[in-house]
Amino acid sequence: MPMEANDEAPPPTEPLLDSHQLLLLRRSASNTTSQVAFVGSNVCPIESLDYEIIENDFFKQDWRSRGKVQILQYIFMKWTLCFLVGIFAGLIGFFNNLAVENIAGMKFVITSNMMLERRYAAAFGVFASTNFVVILFSSLITTFIAPAAAGSGIPEVKAYLNGVDAPRIFSLRTLVVKIVGSITAVSSSLFVGKAEPLVHTGSCIASLLGQGGSKKYGITWGWIRFFNNDRDRRDLVTCGSAAGIAASFRAPVGGVLFAFEEMASWWRSALLWKSFFTTAVVAIVLQGLVDICNSGKCGLFGKEGLIMFDVTSASATYYLADVPPVLVLGVIGGILGSFYNFLLERVLRIYSFIYEKGYAYRILLACSISLFTSCCLFGLPWLATCRPCPTNAGEACPTIGRSGNYKKFQCPPGHYNDLASLFFNTNEDAIRNLFSKGTDTEFHYISILVFFVTCYFLGIFSYGLAAPSGLFVPVILTGASYGRFVGLLMGSHSNLDHGLFAVLGAASLLGGSMRMTVSLCVILLELTNNLLLLPMIMMVLLVSKTVADTFNQNIYDIIMKLKGLPYLEAHAEPYMRQLTVGDVVTGPLQCFNGIEKVRNIVNVLKATGHHGFPVIDQPPVSDSPVLSGLVLRAHLIVLLKKKAFLSTPMLTSSDFMKQFSANDFAKRGSGNNEDIYNIEVTEEEMDMFIDLHPFTNASPYTVVETMSLAKSLILFRGVGLRHLLVVPKTSNWSPVVGILTRHDFMPEHILGLYPSCKRAGGRK
Amino acid sequence: MPMEANDEAPPPTEPLLDSHQLLLLRRSASNTTSQVAFVGSNVCPIESLDYEIIENDFFKQDWRSRGKVQILQYIFMKWTLCFLVGIFAGLIGFFNNLAVENIAGMKFVITSNMMLERRYAAAFGVFASTNFVVILFSSLITTFIAPAAAGSGIPEVKAYLNGVDAPRIFSLRTLVVKIVGSITAVSSSLFVGKAEPLVHTGSCIASLLGQGGSKKYGITWGWIRFFNNDRDRRDLVTCGSAAGIAASFRAPVGGVLFAFEEMASWWRSALLWKSFFTTAVVAIVLQGLVDICNSGKCGLFGKEGLIMFDVTSASATYYLADVPPVLVLGVIGGILGSFYNFLLERVLRIYSFIYEKGYAYRILLACSISLFTSCCLFGLPWLATCRPCPTNAGEACPTIGRSGNYKKFQCPPGHYNDLASLFFNTNEDAIRNLFSKGTDTEFHYISILVFFVTCYFLGIFSYGLAAPSGLFVPVILTGASYGRFVGLLMGSHSNLDHGLFAVLGAASLLGGSMRMTVSLCVILLELTNNLLLLPMIMMVLLVSKTVADTFNQNIYDIIMKLKGLPYLEAHAEPYMRQLTVGDVVTGPLQCFNGIEKVRNIVNVLKATGHHGFPVIDQPPVSDSPVLSGLVLRAHLIVLLKKKAFLSTPMLTSSDFMKQFSANDFAKRGSGNNEDIYNIEVTEEEMDMFIDLHPFTNASPYTVVETMSLAKSLILFRGVGLRHLLVVPKTSNWSPVVGILTRHDFMPEHILGLYPSCKRAGGRK
Repeated sequence: MPMEANDEAPPPTEPLLDSHQLLLLRRSASNTTSQVAFVGSNVCPIESLDYEIIENDFFKQDWRSRGKVQILQYIFMKWTLCFLVGIFAGLIGFFNNLAVENIAGMKFVITSNMMLERRYAAAFGVFASTNFVVILFSSLITTFIAPAAAGSGIPEVKAYLNGVDAPRIFSLRTLVVKIVGSITAVSSSLFVGKAEPLVHTGSCIASLLGQGGSKKYGITWGWIRFFNNDRDRRDLVTCGSAAGIAASFRAPVGGVLFAFEEMASWWRSALLWKSFFTTAVVAIVLQGLVDICNSGKCGLFGKEGLIMFDVTSASATYYLADVPPVLVLGVIGGILGSFYNFLLERVLRIYSFIYEKGYAYRILLACSISLFTSCCLFGLPWLATCRPCPTNAGEACPTIGRSGNYKKFQCPPGHYNDLASLFFNTNEDAIRNLFSKGTDTEFHYISILVFFVTCYFLGIFSYGLAAPSGLFVPVILTGASYGRFVGLLMGSHSNLDHGLFAVLGAASLLGGSMRMTVSLCVILLELTNNLLLLPMIMMVLLVSKTVADTFNQNIYDIIMKLKGLPYLEAHAEPYMRQLTVGDVVTGPLQCFNGIEKVRNIVNVLKATGHHGFPVIDQPPVSDSPVLSGLVLRAHLIVLLKKKAFLSTPMLTSSDFMKQFSANDFAKRGSGNNEDIYNIEVTEEEMDMFIDLHPFTNASPYTVVETMSLAKSLILFRGVGLRHLLVVPKTSNWSPVVGILTRHDFMPEHILGLYPSCKRAGGRK
Repeated sequence: MPMEANDEAPPPTEPLLDSHQLLLLRRSASNTTSQVAFVGSNVCPIESLDYEIIENDFFKQDWRSRGKVQILQYIFMKWTLCFLVGIFAGLIGFFNNLAVENIAGMKFVITSNMMLERRYAAAFGVFASTNFVVILFSSLITTFIAPAAAGSGIPEVKAYLNGVDAPRIFSLRTLVVKIVGSITAVSSSLFVGKAEPLVHTGSCIASLLGQGGSKKYGITWGWIRFFNNDRDRRDLVTCGSAAGIAASFRAPVGGVLFAFEEMASWWRSALLWKSFFTTAVVAIVLQGLVDICNSGKCGLFGKEGLIMFDVTSASATYYLADVPPVLVLGVIGGILGSFYNFLLERVLRIYSFIYEKGYAYRILLACSISLFTSCCLFGLPWLATCRPCPTNAGEACPTIGRSGNYKKFQCPPGHYNDLASLFFNTNEDAIRNLFSKGTDTEFHYISILVFFVTCYFLGIFSYGLAAPSGLFVPVILTGASYGRFVGLLMGSHSNLDHGLFAVLGAASLLGGSMRMTVSLCVILLELTNNLLLLPMIMMVLLVSKTVADTFNQNIYDIIMKLKGLPYLEAHAEPYMRQLTVGDVVTGPLQCFNGIEKVRNIVNVLKATGHHGFPVIDQPPVSDSPVLSGLVLRAHLIVLLKKKAFLSTPMLTSSDFMKQFSANDFAKRGSGNNEDIYNIEVTEEEMDMFIDLHPFTNASPYTVVETMSLAKSLILFRGVGLRHLLVVPKTSNWSPVVGILTRHDFMPEHILGLYPSCKRAGGRK
């Protein structure tokens, strides 16, 4: 894991003793925090995003030149992009469902028909080999075409919205692989979900639209020039992630809340409205497409195609006596959920060891888990005894073919196999069976228990595979089975329907694992379409989250940490109050003069990987050293590329500056910027000068070196900075002490410098 | 209106011409922005809140002294307070309903009985005089006991959460008057609602609990000492406002979203969870109390007591053909809503003129509006012709007594008066009638039209009276009647039930007037208990908000501006990009030396109303003038009170400092702080010194004077500052140029200085 490198940072013996010598010593050391992270299944370099307004002359000129028309165009574009994100997310969400229902459905129809003819071995062969081929394809494209598409994508998107840019997560290739890979992975009967991949897909669409198309493949549109900054793209990606949840669960309000509660680090009212608009578009697109499919033109995609578990209100009356079992459900859900997170983290650690051995191992792992899953799904139902069909069943029993509550499997006519009803079905159908009301006697409690245990562990082992996969659906499935089990145990002591127990069980496990509150509550309400469940779901979620929070963090945060993504928390750790900014800022600091030699700039850019450099006016330009501002690496590279050189050290004339347009300096999207090594500078040019003043951000945010780390974090995180300049308390030989970046606020960096803080720490 | 004073600020002739002379001239002028605002119905002085971490030695010591136990105690207290806020808000919400239903219900029972005996004049007499007495009482207590309780309270609470402290809004007196006044105002059959007063009530409870009880009446608890800062109280008040909506509409999720979308200026995930917990408590308390009342122990409080309009799902099937009328509904709703806001603003302006004439006029106005309303409610139904009862009515027709769809009024047996069913009812019952399904033929379209017009205008005239009043319920009522009217017009062209049209009409008018999206959507869903309406409500809200936004702002923002509350917007106006911080900062600046004479401190505190003063170390203490930090007026007053004087100008020893505890400097709650004039300082002491260093915030946030106003606003608003120090670009005679406060960012102040910016401005 990338973070572990930090343990090697030299631990000062008595660090809180603020000896001046130590300070000097430390300042000459550089931050050893890792600048790479696992993105998808590969290790990639990561960059920070920059939400600061760069106030240099060019930016100001560009702003002044914008008239009413451009501002209107900008606003219009914002809404159009949200609209397009909604349309695409809706279409892809629907297409995803359609494909899964048809691929998986076809598989089950063929196997079921073989079972009817009692060709069990052949049925297993077809079943297992289909799953094998499908997951093989999924892991092959993920591994070799777009490793960034592996996994859920939530940690990467969440980190992006926090200001961490992993270039490949939003590429066109990732998008395509994510869509196709998710469809195949879900179709392969693995215990993986489609919700999180759809969130990543939605964000990816938003990012691609926001940067005007794919840069790599040259499909770009010019009319998007006002979106060339990280702030606008961040907003759009937030809307995209909301659209993803809306598309996967047909839960528009839930999607907005999910984006707000789980994904976004910065949020404002206007964004709420835009994401609401986006999810409304998704809902309308889905509604329209489902209406079309209801006329039967979509193959095996039935009315139940889009996950939507109608639990009608009849079963939702409850009394005060039902509260204790519900609370117990919450407590157990919290424990199971936090244990789920714990196990998942261990498994992911093991997987990452395996992955380091080579690509072949990844594919091998995916295929063997698939084979094992096929064996479980096909083998375990044989353990169950056949049960006679209930006389008052609301539907055909046994059902022959794809979906339905009562699977025939190997049973004689008039009987059904309750375990097959759960295992030998798509995950969505299994959830629907568990949630269905009036089926209290359908399942034997041993069957439910076997299903729960299998689900719990297979869900954990299936997540980390080299294929797009989500946790939402498996966790709902596991939680629903555990809820139903509790319902069976309660027996006649409770008036609640077992379908309702299943819903509450799903809520408790979701709360224990994902730790969201309002958004999960609304998603579950929209999923079950029953508002009367609200108080119970609220109670269960609060209890399970509280219980689980005493053990560990939410699952996405755990994975994010495991991946080494430098996520910036909103709250400061207690030890940050005791350290000042001066204590952690590291050197050596690279500065430029206001008018700097080209050679120096080239050398510094080649020697360091920094992205911002203080510009200092030295005497004789000014009376004393004065901080002129901060210049960005990206802007310096543009200057070098455009050869904005002066033969003598003088200030640039305004005529000279006309060769640049603000657009030259705009950031065109996430991804690798121009490399310094690709720029040719002749030896002659090396001795020329660049006047950095017009290109310098003349008013960077600064803090004084005596400020506590906690207080500076509030500024850094609140405003969304990439660089924070530290200035000395008293006028000094230098007007700037150092630069703080995201990595300087990472607990592992600070605790590496001051190990004695650890004992004072503790969570929260 | 207070703002108008700013128009007198001297308009520089060519302000954007950055002449140095002009700059000096302006810096010697002071900010003329008003420091008072309308709070409730009276003009009060307002202060800013301070969310900055004050890093002086005392604060640091206090933090270091906190062990694990104190931190746990703090967290435990936070949750306990949320729990208590939920309990109290739920109880008060329920009690409010109970009282209204019984007072208003009794009134209608008595009048209806008189009507049955054909004693019409006596009935009118009882009806009008009850209304008159009740509103008289309400306006008397509001005017003479707690003027801050007048109106909805939403603008004041919203401003508080933005950092504006109006002392009296959260006092115990205001709380009591708000509760009693709201009950009486709603019972008086005026077109006012209870939702917003309940939000104010919830916030008030939260604030009182957060400061450990009422300071004025000495009911305070000591165990709350960690809550002695504005940040924690802000969080609690946010939870309180969520609890208010949850209590009034039994909409826990809607309450959370309302607090987030409309009320809060700062928000983070942890707060979402806390407010969700609070509203969950409210929901459970309400459920429990309603269960108790269902056994009939609550007088006239029936099952319908808590506003909850069950629109069952049967009526919620719709087709693509129903979309156009729904869109039209949205467009008209947007226009009507923005016109509502426009008219309301005019009426409030007129009212404030009247109010300036004296208290008697306030009460006179309330009483005359009440009389006029009584005349309308009793008189207009006589215009309607009696209609024969439908044969298939689901309930008794005509209903005799309080609630029910078919009011008898003056009609012969077997007939009902459709206009009386709307007018001669509580507002809640009228809404329930309008929302009810299967009653398409109940109302004549002329009746609905008459009701709509009356409602629309009476709602506008009733809001600004000197009594607690809300807009939510009257807007729902008006919108529902307009929606039903559209439904009648559509006739057989639409398959939608007219009850559904009423819901959508209410949504459109709410969207057009309040301009919320997600929160209104969820509140309406929780209110109507029908999730299938979601896509339609979303569509209507989006359309009506979009249409209305082209005309004016949302109603609360309009009222807030009218009241002169200095609300700090999150986004910067375009002209703020063209002005630098140095352009707007005003003087004269009052600074202190690190070791200052008592006389100077006393004189400065008496001469100015500033709340923060830069502390500068001059030679010989340092080599050159150095900014030591910022000292707060409140802390200076503590020092003067505690007589922390030194006979010679020297640095304080640590022994000397032991006489203070961090608790001395804690801010104990909103409200007036100690006045400088109450502190006795002898002539002898006047010549002594105070060492300000240990009490100075040594690391205030600073910006450089060349930073654009827009960029500094991001810092100021993002971090929630009260004072922002402006430092010079180059080392200078003074290390600080000035201090920016909230008032310096107000558009009226900036546009007063630079009137030419106005033309470049425009909304958004």
